[in-house]
Amino acid sequence: MTLPEFERTRLLQRLLAPGDASALVVPNGDDAAVLRIPGNLVVTTDALVEGVDFLGWAPWHSAGHKALAVNLSDLAAMGAEPVGYLNALCLPRTFSDENLEDLARGMAGLGVGCVGGDFSRIDGPVVITITALGTVGPGQALTRRGARAGDGVYVSGMVGAAAAGLKVLMDAQPVTNDDVRCAVEAQLRPTPRLALGRALRGVATACIDVSDGLLQDLSHLLVASDVGAVLVKEDLPIHPAAFQVGGNAWTLALAGGEDFELLFTAADHAAVLAAAAAAQVKVSRLGQVTADGGLSLQGMVELTRDDVTAMDRGYPVAALSAAGMAGFRHF
Amino acid sequence: MTLPEFERTRLLQRLLAPGDASALVVPNGDDAAVLRIPGNLVVTTDALVEGVDFLGWAPWHSAGHKALAVNLSDLAAMGAEPVGYLNALCLPRTFSDENLEDLARGMAGLGVGCVGGDFSRIDGPVVITITALGTVGPGQALTRRGARAGDGVYVSGMVGAAAAGLKVLMDAQPVTNDDVRCAVEAQLRPTPRLALGRALRGVATACIDVSDGLLQDLSHLLVASDVGAVLVKEDLPIHPAAFQVGGNAWTLALAGGEDFELLFTAADHAAVLAAAAAAQVKVSRLGQVTADGGLSLQGMVELTRDDVTAMDRGYPVAALSAAGMAGFRHF
Repeated sequence: MTLPEFERTRLLQRLLAPGDASALVVPNGDDAAVLRIPGNLVVTTDALVEGVDFLGWAPWHSAGHKALAVNLSDLAAMGAEPVGYLNALCLPRTFSDENLEDLARGMAGLGVGCVGGDFSRIDGPVVITITALGTVGPGQALTRRGARAGDGVYVSGMVGAAAAGLKVLMDAQPVTNDDVRCAVEAQLRPTPRLALGRALRGVATACIDVSDGLLQDLSHLLVASDVGAVLVKEDLPIHPAAFQVGGNAWTLALAGGEDFELLFTAADHAAVLAAAAAAQVKVSRLGQVTADGGLSLQGMVELTRDDVTAMDRGYPVAALSAAGMAGFRHF
Repeated sequence: MTLPEFERTRLLQRLLAPGDASALVVPNGDDAAVLRIPGNLVVTTDALVEGVDFLGWAPWHSAGHKALAVNLSDLAAMGAEPVGYLNALCLPRTFSDENLEDLARGMAGLGVGCVGGDFSRIDGPVVITITALGTVGPGQALTRRGARAGDGVYVSGMVGAAAAGLKVLMDAQPVTNDDVRCAVEAQLRPTPRLALGRALRGVATACIDVSDGLLQDLSHLLVASDVGAVLVKEDLPIHPAAFQVGGNAWTLALAGGEDFELLFTAADHAAVLAAAAAAQVKVSRLGQVTADGGLSLQGMVELTRDDVTAMDRGYPVAALSAAGMAGFRHF
């Protein structure tokens, strides 16, 4: 059954509360929303396409969750406080109200208010475009630019889980234990590290979230900061599922992407530990920032400044290929 | 030829300048953009789908223009000053760099800065989702809610042009004169009434842009304000092309939509004329707001409060059907 657009809008407004009403001067339902923004506005947009960015046969709940979570992860990487989001939904005629409700519940579960949106008809895959809005005090935004030689390189949580989970889903492997269950959950319903991002204000010198893959995202940060890094292989927090799903665990962990962990640099190790404790998130020190613009993971990956720049730009890198990491592609 | 995503991002960054750099604390290229927002933030999002919201065979220049213009029109209807926009582009593999450049030039022509965006791959139609950001001083936003009995009802420019232009394009009619040429242009490249929206702050008591069709958009405004209106048939500024393209001119003008003119109410006629003069836009007085919640266009359309509410919700209205206005459907 398919409700008229007006009723669908009502359905979304009921399920997706506007959040902190004190910020909302003119609510959803006018030509635009009007919000009070204390400090500076942090804004990001990402479109997720069915069959490309989320699995068409996964529950719509997880598609809604993921579409919002990847945008909130960008806010987290800037150290921002979310104030709301807008969703533009392109839905085919066959998309049922039950699916829409499931999709909305997936978004609502993240606890951020919806301040506006749009419905469009599409003769093709579902497209969910989210624009997330956040705030940060003047001078407090975490960017990719501030890493300095001598800083530690850190990552939250564990890497490789989302890619391992994707492999399990694509291969239709049985979910045999909690590690694998956790990896599938990481793929379907990633957790944006908002509390950690906030706690890292004034602590991290540069920050990015792990979306393309740890090495490629690190290359974005290193090139923006005009530095390099040496990583310690044994200190990489690889998710145990990455060793259990039949792929190359290193490829899953370093090039798999979609973990939506925060990858950051900082000079004060004790302050990082305090931020991690405050946010109740595990944080690992992977290595150190170097003045030289290359990237080294002893014995495994040795990249020159030019290689890192190429990886920043999304080009294949010979050294990665030699390490067996070029074969992995995003779904 | 298709450039890698990094080069495409560079292409867009070159063509779509960020606009007022003083507002931009952290530019495009990080996880999110950071902006200074003087006053309140006004934010709206609209997705346009190829073949539904814009013609797949029209120049990509006009698709880019229209996608941004319809969002800027929402800012105009709120009386907001644009500060920038984000674009999320879902493009099929076959979409060429030349098309992308054409699309970007269509956006760039509107003179508003691009502060961020996203590329996604789609196996389907092109989807362009724009989020427009604007500012407005506290208490200055124009909403749909403030119309009062006795206010005049006004519309900028002329109505029916965009629908007439669409009919010309769909029927592959020859463009025989300047009226028809102007109508086609109105369909392909609508003009957001930003200067008028700003000039109407403190003058208009309620405002909306004409996107769904004059009567339906008016119903949104009347229901939000809990009032009705009487319109004078002879005072409707119908575009001359609406009488020349073989359709029902009244249907095109009243139900066609996509004119992106401002439809507003105001108590002070002299102030409206001054605002129109300041914005160098023609404005017509169509009628008057009534305390009764119905809508009347003498002899043509007589709607009760319930009819207006039904039209506000997007349901078919018997009276419109009687006036021969139910046959028209958006492309």
